[in-house]
Amino acid sequence: MAVNTSIIIRLEIDKTKVSFGEVVNAISKARGDVVAIDVIHAGQIMTTRDITVNLSEFGSDRIRQELEQVPGLRVVNISDSTFLVHLGGKIEIQPKLPIKNRDDLSKVYTPGVARVCMAIHEDKSKAYSLTIKRNTVAVISDGTAVLGLGDIGPEAAMPVMEGKAMLFKQLAGVDAFPICLETKDVEEIIRTIKAIAPAFGGINLEDISSPRCFEIEKRLQEELDIPVFHDDQHGTAVVVLAGLLNSLKVVGKNISSIRVVVMGIGAAGVACCKILLAAGVQDLVAVDRQGAIVSGGGPYANPMWNWLAEHSNPNRMVGTLSDVIAGADVFVGVSGPGLLKVEDVQKMAADPIVFAMANPEPEIDPEVAEPYVRVLATGRSDFPNQINNVLVFPGIFRGALDCQAKIITEEMKLAAARAIASVVTEEELNEQYIIPSIFNDKVVQLVRNEVIRAAIETGEARRIPKDFR
Amino acid sequence: MAVNTSIIIRLEIDKTKVSFGEVVNAISKARGDVVAIDVIHAGQIMTTRDITVNLSEFGSDRIRQELEQVPGLRVVNISDSTFLVHLGGKIEIQPKLPIKNRDDLSKVYTPGVARVCMAIHEDKSKAYSLTIKRNTVAVISDGTAVLGLGDIGPEAAMPVMEGKAMLFKQLAGVDAFPICLETKDVEEIIRTIKAIAPAFGGINLEDISSPRCFEIEKRLQEELDIPVFHDDQHGTAVVVLAGLLNSLKVVGKNISSIRVVVMGIGAAGVACCKILLAAGVQDLVAVDRQGAIVSGGGPYANPMWNWLAEHSNPNRMVGTLSDVIAGADVFVGVSGPGLLKVEDVQKMAADPIVFAMANPEPEIDPEVAEPYVRVLATGRSDFPNQINNVLVFPGIFRGALDCQAKIITEEMKLAAARAIASVVTEEELNEQYIIPSIFNDKVVQLVRNEVIRAAIETGEARRIPKDFR
Repeated sequence: MAVNTSIIIRLEIDKTKVSFGEVVNAISKARGDVVAIDVIHAGQIMTTRDITVNLSEFGSDRIRQELEQVPGLRVVNISDSTFLVHLGGKIEIQPKLPIKNRDDLSKVYTPGVARVCMAIHEDKSKAYSLTIKRNTVAVISDGTAVLGLGDIGPEAAMPVMEGKAMLFKQLAGVDAFPICLETKDVEEIIRTIKAIAPAFGGINLEDISSPRCFEIEKRLQEELDIPVFHDDQHGTAVVVLAGLLNSLKVVGKNISSIRVVVMGIGAAGVACCKILLAAGVQDLVAVDRQGAIVSGGGPYANPMWNWLAEHSNPNRMVGTLSDVIAGADVFVGVSGPGLLKVEDVQKMAADPIVFAMANPEPEIDPEVAEPYVRVLATGRSDFPNQINNVLVFPGIFRGALDCQAKIITEEMKLAAARAIASVVTEEELNEQYIIPSIFNDKVVQLVRNEVIRAAIETGEARRIPKDFR
Repeated sequence: MAVNTSIIIRLEIDKTKVSFGEVVNAISKARGDVVAIDVIHAGQIMTTRDITVNLSEFGSDRIRQELEQVPGLRVVNISDSTFLVHLGGKIEIQPKLPIKNRDDLSKVYTPGVARVCMAIHEDKSKAYSLTIKRNTVAVISDGTAVLGLGDIGPEAAMPVMEGKAMLFKQLAGVDAFPICLETKDVEEIIRTIKAIAPAFGGINLEDISSPRCFEIEKRLQEELDIPVFHDDQHGTAVVVLAGLLNSLKVVGKNISSIRVVVMGIGAAGVACCKILLAAGVQDLVAVDRQGAIVSGGGPYANPMWNWLAEHSNPNRMVGTLSDVIAGADVFVGVSGPGLLKVEDVQKMAADPIVFAMANPEPEIDPEVAEPYVRVLATGRSDFPNQINNVLVFPGIFRGALDCQAKIITEEMKLAAARAIASVVTEEELNEQYIIPSIFNDKVVQLVRNEVIRAAIETGEARRIPKDFR
């Protein structure tokens, strides 16, 4: 995958012994691409420069080796630009106003703050106007299913949660704070999140392994009065549905008459199945390692699979992916690399739609699949049609916070998916462009609006935002 | 207490019927003090103005009544400036850098972030360099002992914790996030804080009622590897000691030869006793409602009182405050209003030092006490010598974070107290100025430096800051 890793090399160069062209040559030999040069110190003989280099398949060790072989060069250090942006963390807390004098202090802190506290004590709902609750979401993980890395623990999960907090603020103005939990016990996670909930207007669960995530989300949603949203499930599901709605327009098929095979029935897979069924898919077959999930095939260990067995696969198809893929219109993969073969795609109905979202290696190599599919989407940014839940969570929470929704319902998720799909106009829509870019600035506003509209229509909005009055 | 409450009155004024002088007169009649005027709209006949008014003992209702009696005036609305600064909360989360393009995104989020996560997974201590942990403190309360308001609940406690987060950032550059807990159960509070600890470099406990606070702090300090500091206890204790050290210089007494009576043995009182004993006070008598705490007087319900009974009151004084105050050099009150009588002060040794810190009403009215004491300190900002723990927590945590201390030891607290005391120079020192202002910009830096020095000397520093190498 095209991970754009760049490094900064600080070099001491003896100008009497080596030319800068030789430096560039040495870097090129290790397949590095010089993209910037900064002069740090320029002497008569010695000069110090910072050279920014994009790496290819070879790492920075290879570049160091090449440089160290050149007489007259000294590698002072090599720093990794990705690590550099993480130094000290990526977010900070800022006061909204300065405390300039004692009068300011007596308003924001003691003694004046006491009257504000008592106003909330008398009417708890005033927390929405007089504290950060109105605009603040907790991004919570236990570090058990971080990216494709698995159970790496709470400290190691923090950089992802901080990145998410950055996106929340930049894209939707939502204040998000990362909390990583030193426990994997379902009951303790539920208790902990309930205990810290008063400050927050919503809870974004993140990277919690399946099937624990289902119980945690369900229980929290029942026991808290603020929205709880497991992004790995619903963020993915919403953006998959958005992409599918537009793909169906491209191929001219109707959602109620297609057959969809969903491969990989973990957190994201279950949520994809549920939203597709809610959106009108009649014939959906869910497949995991041991084959298609089917009524009578259980009981399954994962309670969601038992639910799926009863609510999908109307033709009771059995067997492996290869067995059930024949004649399918759509493949949705949230499983592992290389699980979908060219022969499988060839067995699909005309105009196959393939969403191969395993990360970082898709279920089928995009270049291999391309000749055989009509629409192809992946989780990767280096191919068209990236299915990325950054399209979802900022707008969904912006909407839920603005209308003080108690819950994010299936209707609100469906509305979000339709909003994302609608960003791509009829004129723009084609096989290579079924889903907008995450940098498209219409997305958040449209998702926010449609989520609020759905919340109001279904009676979940505790507050009607000004622009909806 | 001089709570400086100001309101903003929006008035529609019919210039043909009423002069602005009459408006000011009406406000003055209700003891309001006009401090600012803004013209919002100026018409031929009607003009709209925002009038900022400082309130005295009468509230805004009285002003509204007076204004409504004047023909030609209409009160459009009255807003309270203290509430206005709280609207939407007082802090926000900010990304430290913008995500301008896909290259940025691939560094701060997927896929690049994965390498950063793995680096922390392989070496957990890297969380200090690659996440917000290095500079981030949780300000945690269960809302059971908020200011003088008592158990007002987690939502109502938030404005205080947000105010504290503002002070942390403005005064010491520390990122502090407020967490208010929906539980009062000691074990559950301990479990919850341990569960959310990985993101944080320190825990500032706040406004947790006594004696629960002792157990919670002690257990967390034992079970976590980051500093845990209950500010109501130690913040107060440190600043009391700072003030006492300077007061003793004023009266020319030695700490080892004085007798101190501490009144009110809750969270702050216990901590004051402990730090005074650690600082060298030999004769300390702790008094609560039922009288002096004395060896053999127990067993007491509060385990800290049993500890005090064994470690203080060497002359086994018994009885009420009035009984034990005779001959005392110092009175430290963290109890309730009016508990110290003039007759009590008259019984004290020469040059009495009185710290009457009950809030908002001190143990003795400062104006009543003044003729009889040599040094008087209170918790109030409208008298000299305000004992305010805003002098303590920013610098203590700045120091503890900078040296990655595992714990804030008694030595570090003593060092902080001496640092605060040292801000007042020999030339400046007098009865009216024993403690610096919270806006004195030397305080945080000096406290930070002395805390780090103490941490290094006692082997508690996991990192030696650059300026100490």
